Amino acid sequence: MIPTLTVDLNCDMGESFGAWSLGNDAAILPFVTSANIACGFHAGDPAVMKQTVRAALRHGVAIGAHPGLPDLVGFGRRDMAISAEEAFDMTVYQLGAIAAVAKAEGGQLHHLKPHGALYNMAATNAALAEAIAEAVYKVQPELTLYGLAGSELTKAGEKLGLRTAHEVFADRTYQADGTLTPRRQPDALITDADVAIAQVLRMVQAGQVRTQQGHDVAIRADTVCLHGDGAHALEFAQRLNAALRGAGVTLQAGLKPTAS
Amino acid sequence: MIPTLTVDLNCDMGESFGAWSLGNDAAILPFVTSANIACGFHAGDPAVMKQTVRAALRHGVAIGAHPGLPDLVGFGRRDMAISAEEAFDMTVYQLGAIAAVAKAEGGQLHHLKPHGALYNMAATNAALAEAIAEAVYKVQPELTLYGLAGSELTKAGEKLGLRTAHEVFADRTYQADGTLTPRRQPDALITDADVAIAQVLRMVQAGQVRTQQGHDVAIRADTVCLHGDGAHALEFAQRLNAALRGAGVTLQAGLKPTAS
Amino acid sequence: MIPTLTVDLNCDMGESFGAWSLGNDAAILPFVTSANIACGFHAGDPAVMKQTVRAALRHGVAIGAHPGLPDLVGFGRRDMAISAEEAFDMTVYQLGAIAAVAKAEGGQLHHLKPHGALYNMAATNAALAEAIAEAVYKVQPELTLYGLAGSELTKAGEKLGLRTAHEVFADRTYQADGTLTPRRQPDALITDADVAIAQVLRMVQAGQVRTQQGHDVAIRADTVCLHGDGAHALEFAQRLNAALRGAGVTLQAGLKPTAS
Amino acid sequence: MIPTLTVDLNCDMGESFGAWSLGNDAAILPFVTSANIACGFHAGDPAVMKQTVRAALRHGVAIGAHPGLPDLVGFGRRDMAISAEEAFDMTVYQLGAIAAVAKAEGGQLHHLKPHGALYNMAATNAALAEAIAEAVYKVQPELTLYGLAGSELTKAGEKLGLRTAHEVFADRTYQADGTLTPRRQPDALITDADVAIAQVLRMVQAGQVRTQQGHDVAIRADTVCLHGDGAHALEFAQRLNAALRGAGVTLQAGLKPTAS
Repeated sequence: MIPTLTVDLNCDMGESFGAWSLGNDAAILPFVTSANIACGFHAGDPAVMKQTVRAALRHGVAIGAHPGLPDLVGFGRRDMAISAEEAFDMTVYQLGAIAAVAKAEGGQLHHLKPHGALYNMAATNAALAEAIAEAVYKVQPELTLYGLAGSELTKAGEKLGLRTAHEVFADRTYQADGTLTPRRQPDALITDADVAIAQVLRMVQAGQVRTQQGHDVAIRADTVCLHGDGAHALEFAQRLNAALRGAGVTLQAGLKPTAS
Repeated sequence: MIPTLTVDLNCDMGESFGAWSLGNDAAILPFVTSANIACGFHAGDPAVMKQTVRAALRHGVAIGAHPGLPDLVGFGRRDMAISAEEAFDMTVYQLGAIAAVAKAEGGQLHHLKPHGALYNMAATNAALAEAIAEAVYKVQPELTLYGLAGSELTKAGEKLGLRTAHEVFADRTYQADGTLTPRRQPDALITDADVAIAQVLRMVQAGQVRTQQGHDVAIRADTVCLHGDGAHALEFAQRLNAALRGAGVTLQAGLKPTAS
Repeated sequence: MIPTLTVDLNCDMGESFGAWSLGNDAAILPFVTSANIACGFHAGDPAVMKQTVRAALRHGVAIGAHPGLPDLVGFGRRDMAISAEEAFDMTVYQLGAIAAVAKAEGGQLHHLKPHGALYNMAATNAALAEAIAEAVYKVQPELTLYGLAGSELTKAGEKLGLRTAHEVFADRTYQADGTLTPRRQPDALITDADVAIAQVLRMVQAGQVRTQQGHDVAIRADTVCLHGDGAHALEFAQRLNAALRGAGVTLQAGLKPTAS
Repeated sequence: MIPTLTVDLNCDMGESFGAWSLGNDAAILPFVTSANIACGFHAGDPAVMKQTVRAALRHGVAIGAHPGLPDLVGFGRRDMAISAEEAFDMTVYQLGAIAAVAKAEGGQLHHLKPHGALYNMAATNAALAEAIAEAVYKVQPELTLYGLAGSELTKAGEKLGLRTAHEVFADRTYQADGTLTPRRQPDALITDADVAIAQVLRMVQAGQVRTQQGHDVAIRADTVCLHGDGAHALEFAQRLNAALRGAGVTLQAGLKPTAS
């Protein structure tokens, strides 16, 4: 028997706040398999979190905690010199908050993925990565920890025995060492949707990515990051979803959410 | 066999925030049996919550969620015209956050008591009371809901089948209908510690309180609210604790916290 | 010589925050004569304030401070039990902040209009109204204080000798005593644009409004409140602007903003 | 005629927030000549700002804006990756807020000194320094800009023609290039009060400081930073104040505050 290839399509959601709407959650949900839901620090509020959990459950999409830095006006995108202990504390807090929202709606969490600057810092800073992994381990060790493929964050999760999901990007180019090309470089982004889809297919099917230096490197592609906003986000989600299914790839999060 | 009288002594704790310290938690903890821990909306932050949970666990004091209004600068003491749904949402969120902090420290929650204006509004506003009770019911129905004795909040909890703790005050006078004398009235406060202690003993032992109108009315005293700040808070906590034990009253929260 | 009728068309602006956009400021600006700019408490942030001031200056629209309650998630729309002193303090603070933003952009403030719940509370609560008026008086007494026509707020401003602008609504019905029909009543809103425009014309030209009880009452209409969001906001602003000019009414804020 | 030596003693003040008190402003005020007042982002709130301005005016102490990063829980002490434009915007906003508070109390601002991480980043990051200086220049060019002696911040102010005050530290050691010994080094702090006072006297009288490398370097000491909290803060302020006056040094801020 040939094992079926599977991959998860994840997207940040629940990024509205109070009177402010952001993103296009309702339209994107049919095309993804897991949702990273903002927890109130960089976006989201208790009402938005509830509505987003409800929508994810309705679509059978796996619910993830998406903790961020306490920087609402900066959307959690600005690096902050937090300590590892602060990273641990803010992850525990936000994880608990969204877990309770999920439970109140009859669902449960499936994963945790840090947001924005917290995600980026945890990709390269081992102390922050370990603190975030430890927070998951101490509060809900059954969760899957999402992190940049091959990063300090997935390493830290694996060291603690957590299930991890290595995340790849459709629209970013890669370097010879398997890291993302920094955004400040002109060739960081893939703007051609066909190229982006081909890159994902190759990562999922062959476990390889062609780097900017022209060589193939191995990459583990458990989950693909989709963007919820932008002019072509929805169309791209639809196309990538269709291309993967057309290639016989099963789209699913590692564990399906349970409506209790 | 004569049943032993028991009562719980509760105190708000974890009300520091960032660089700011408030209260005298370490000194008060030996004399109370349950701690209501601020959850970050009116006071407390993830680090303070963790330290407070740790201290409570060390003293074998029951840990309670103490959700408040989103009014940090006003310490959650100013009434806000929130909807019942907003009360539900903010209670779920804060309850989840402190539950995760407790779990990460090897403990678990015992109760929930709303803070300040949220407590006061829920005492008389049935819709808010029901929303808060429903939040507890949907997230952790095993918790005890603390509310003003005879209030809409305890009623709402009982309607849902929640365990409730009727709270009485040592230092407040009561009206003929069993409600607290409003603070704006000159005779609202009991300033003589002996009188306050005698009032508590009578509420616990006889289930009665002498009202300002000179009659006795029935009152259910499951838990007594102690204050953590003020010049004589510690001394009063010590004296009340000693007086109750001296009278053969067992001091304990309804369910002891479990260090797992 | 017949004096020219003049009226001001004002609109709340600068209500975006961080990553979140709200309103349609750029489209509305050509059709109004004054902009009430959020000051960071209920909406707006330092960057949004700057962009909004710039846009207003470009269009020659008068710049107003638009202070609100410290309730970002509630958009300043929920009543809070603040003291008069707190109202004074938060008005001074926000007024200073937007004044500095205006100055840095080479402009200056023209007026102050409280936002949302603060506006509503100040319409009927004399103590709050006086506190807000006093804040304006002590910081920039040359500003015009905008308040509901005939409200406690305009009264408080007039008592201190401030220039005031009595505000009327195009899309709200009025009661026999000259107050707005409460929103909870089914006949509170005027949904027919023609009726709304006719009501404004009559208020401006005749100083009268036909109440829901069918009688005319006197009303002072110095400024008309326009809404910046909603499906038909822009179209209505255009139509009202055209109707007033077509009727020979001069559209202008009391004092034009000065680009220094 | 021999010119009189003068120096300013400045201290951070108004760092309480809501229900939380911090510092010992009332006790320290008699011994300093200028107060840096928190503006609500890292500490302070509109009520605290008013009380602090009042106290400073009562003591004839010069009032300064003390803007910080939008990081209340971190007290503005954590570096954040803000852009120069964000630094400009947050400085304008906070400067305006405290200026209005001062004006409402009949006073006026004398200076601006960034707080914590914003101060430190502006000492070495020219783009941030220029943005802060430009904010002062565009809003109140008559203010004195306080910055670390010889830093990018004072340079940026001087380039714009602002009056600057070069700040020195009594309790920090200096390196051969005139910069402070980083706090992570064991010899960063001077814990002996006599040594600290001698260092200040030498900096003020001789314009020199003995570095950790044993050589003297020139330093411009316009203002000395005092700390308001800590066990010996008050005693040290008293002693340094007395030592300077005893040595014939005039203690004063560059411009006295004016009560209008």
